Amino acid sequence: MSQSRAIILLSGGLDSATVLAMAKARGLDCHTVGFDYGQKHRSELKAARRIADALSDHPHKVIRIDLGSIGGSALTSDDIDVPITGVADDGIPVTYVPARNTVFLSIALGYGEVIGARHLFIGANAVDYSGYPDCRPAFIEQFESLANVATAAVDGGERWVIEAPLMTMSKSDIVTTGNALGVDYSMTVSCYQADEEGAACGACDACRLRRKGFLDAGLYDPTKYRRGISPKI
Amino acid sequence: MSQSRAIILLSGGLDSATVLAMAKARGLDCHTVGFDYGQKHRSELKAARRIADALSDHPHKVIRIDLGSIGGSALTSDDIDVPITGVADDGIPVTYVPARNTVFLSIALGYGEVIGARHLFIGANAVDYSGYPDCRPAFIEQFESLANVATAAVDGGERWVIEAPLMTMSKSDIVTTGNALGVDYSMTVSCYQADEEGAACGACDACRLRRKGFLDAGLYDPTKYRRGISPKI
Repeated sequence: MSQSRAIILLSGGLDSATVLAMAKARGLDCHTVGFDYGQKHRSELKAARRIADALSDHPHKVIRIDLGSIGGSALTSDDIDVPITGVADDGIPVTYVPARNTVFLSIALGYGEVIGARHLFIGANAVDYSGYPDCRPAFIEQFESLANVATAAVDGGERWVIEAPLMTMSKSDIVTTGNALGVDYSMTVSCYQADEEGAACGACDACRLRRKGFLDAGLYDPTKYRRGISPKI
Repeated sequence: MSQSRAIILLSGGLDSATVLAMAKARGLDCHTVGFDYGQKHRSELKAARRIADALSDHPHKVIRIDLGSIGGSALTSDDIDVPITGVADDGIPVTYVPARNTVFLSIALGYGEVIGARHLFIGANAVDYSGYPDCRPAFIEQFESLANVATAAVDGGERWVIEAPLMTMSKSDIVTTGNALGVDYSMTVSCYQADEEGAACGACDACRLRRKGFLDAGLYDPTKYRRGISPKI
């Protein structure tokens, strides 16, 4: 019996690595897609390749897209610093990349059409990133509705299913789940401003959330920090 | 009174040039966006710039995205020829680029968030391209629903409106409308395999539809064909 094909959005961070392990555990034939979108933290691209090499049955697909040219985010624009105070912004954080998940899911949808996948996995999480509009259940539901009118799926055949299995999990639940599935988190990079070697700043929101998640789970966090850093939560 | 801002997807073809003229006629502050997505017909990129220079109040924005790397379309893949027989395919044409309009609208949505636009115009048309799933009213409606949960618009403020004013118009109606608004169609390139100078093949579906549209409208078509070509409809 042939396996169902799935596309997994793989960023190089711990969330999407966990999602890949979860999709594999379900017996799906997993194809990973990542994006070189002008992010400052380039080392996550290398991390994604390492994770795919370890966990996926197919070569990792990287698609270039110049989201930096539209600006508007601390993750792509040199004019906006990544916040390191640990104090939440009012409203939507400056690390939000406008419409990023919509863009990523759309491109993955096109790739999925070409290779005949009908499952699309994303590591969106409404708990830790509650300020990001495109990390909420309503967004995923709407994207699924769109996928089923936007593609060749309308001609009949299997419907698209968009899955965000981490949506309501805490970071602690996520690392506990991945740990049980054998994910080697030393391969992942979470820091929004990791250096070229993937060494973390220990102060941005992504570093703090990760560290707290491992602490709460009672698990060892293999994050490599920059020399002389005292990581914060 | 400040004008409402609008994003116009501008490909360089006659449909999107007409949409730009229509949006301008409504008094909107029009920002044009185009995509260098690996299309074989590169001359449409130059055409889009010419059209924006003539009709828009702002520089044309070109965003690079490597859709060629996912393949699956005659417009981006060297492995699939652009059809020139004029005979319709069964089902979805090979010139369909998987999820292209979803991807384009998503990126335009992100750009619109950054510049504070809430109107998004696309030249999608259900009459001539009835085989493309992402050129139908249901697709536009679903994308509008998605836009309003995917972005900062959820925090209150004006809702997104996605407009496809050509949706139910014939090609003849489109050129008649654009002509009345003063669009210079000699700047546009429709051919799926136009050469570097924008000269058309006269045989692909896009050439045939354009030629028939001008004939039906009783208007002169300023298309420049390749040397020695006898254009077909």
